[in-house]
Amino acid sequence: MAYKLWYWPGIQGRGEFVRLALEAAGIAYEDCARDRGVEALIADMEARTGRGPFAPPYLEVDGLVIAQVADILLYLGDRHDLAPSKIADRYWVHQVQLTIADAVAEVHNVHHPVAMMDYYDDQKPEAARAAKQFREQRLPKFLGWLEQAANANPGDWLIDHRWTYADTSLFQLVEGLRYMFPRAMAAIEGDYRSVTRIRDQVAQLPGVHAYLKSERRIPFNTDGIFRQYPELDG
Amino acid sequence: MAYKLWYWPGIQGRGEFVRLALEAAGIAYEDCARDRGVEALIADMEARTGRGPFAPPYLEVDGLVIAQVADILLYLGDRHDLAPSKIADRYWVHQVQLTIADAVAEVHNVHHPVAMMDYYDDQKPEAARAAKQFREQRLPKFLGWLEQAANANPGDWLIDHRWTYADTSLFQLVEGLRYMFPRAMAAIEGDYRSVTRIRDQVAQLPGVHAYLKSERRIPFNTDGIFRQYPELDG
Repeated sequence: MAYKLWYWPGIQGRGEFVRLALEAAGIAYEDCARDRGVEALIADMEARTGRGPFAPPYLEVDGLVIAQVADILLYLGDRHDLAPSKIADRYWVHQVQLTIADAVAEVHNVHHPVAMMDYYDDQKPEAARAAKQFREQRLPKFLGWLEQAANANPGDWLIDHRWTYADTSLFQLVEGLRYMFPRAMAAIEGDYRSVTRIRDQVAQLPGVHAYLKSERRIPFNTDGIFRQYPELDG
Repeated sequence: MAYKLWYWPGIQGRGEFVRLALEAAGIAYEDCARDRGVEALIADMEARTGRGPFAPPYLEVDGLVIAQVADILLYLGDRHDLAPSKIADRYWVHQVQLTIADAVAEVHNVHHPVAMMDYYDDQKPEAARAAKQFREQRLPKFLGWLEQAANANPGDWLIDHRWTYADTSLFQLVEGLRYMFPRAMAAIEGDYRSVTRIRDQVAQLPGVHAYLKSERRIPFNTDGIFRQYPELDG
């Protein structure tokens, strides 16, 4: 078994949620487009018909190809014990992941509100309006929900007494939000102490700690999903 | 076991993807807010702390509360055999569902591109621009992907030789798109014959057929996710 991860090589993007779970668990994988270039990714996608992915990221193993971040994490959770085993916890960890995915989609919509396929520069006034509502209403709602979820757990982590893929995804959400909205996040982060604590715990997992210091971790940039445009930070 | 479904009582919305799977499978459920009113839904949500839902719909059974459409369908698929049993098929059906969920989120974004919490009337020019790109680029991409997926399956359905929750969700996506974009859909539907055929097959499932004729099926309206605003139909 050797995992092949296919994702845009120049950004963290949605692929990062998969990379973090793999790195935290110490699961070996090839980050194919980083090794072979973006043309290889495009050629690979075009060659996949039938059950091909709608979009990257997708993970290939033993002839199976899985796309959609939440589906990939569901698979990895089942196969590598990155999710709790109790039935109730199993659907809960997935629910948390799907809610984080909703937050990520809304973040993307902030800088691409009216034309997903065009440039940010072509939709700056609309993005400013979208950013204001995101910062003022949606950001506290998402963080508040995660905080409540964390506080409801008797363990140190989001769901269980050990980390799951929901924790690595929470880490990435917080990191991305800090990069994109440094002022807005600095102003409200103190209200979400459990979220921040879990973020710190994930950063200290040996696999994640090593990954973040390696060149495998692509720095945030303004081609990704989280983008630092100061005019959107209020 | 008695399922309680909680969702906004006046719209099909995201809850409809759950209703259709339950109706197709003949699983009994109480559509709580339709019986008890929207105030009951709001009160119920506010009373749920800890592992409460981020937003409706959510399904309650035996003390378990599951939110997020894809997670609810994952649960129902596992428990009621509404998903294939082979491992590869099981992640594939979920991948299809998550891609349909992405399409639904983009549809919502068409009429609410810059301010999700405000009215459509406050963002009509932005919505017109978002609608143009959705109709011209995203709609064919989503339908083309589903068509390719359907054509890759040797059976009559999307994934297996029998219906799964991906088929009922495909039905609802097509119905919603026809309501929201009657002209745009009429112009391109002929290119997606397998998608249309599966839509027709779902409509003829006995449980769905009875449901669509009943008063339990709320008509489409301009409070839901799919909204018929002629100016957005090109």
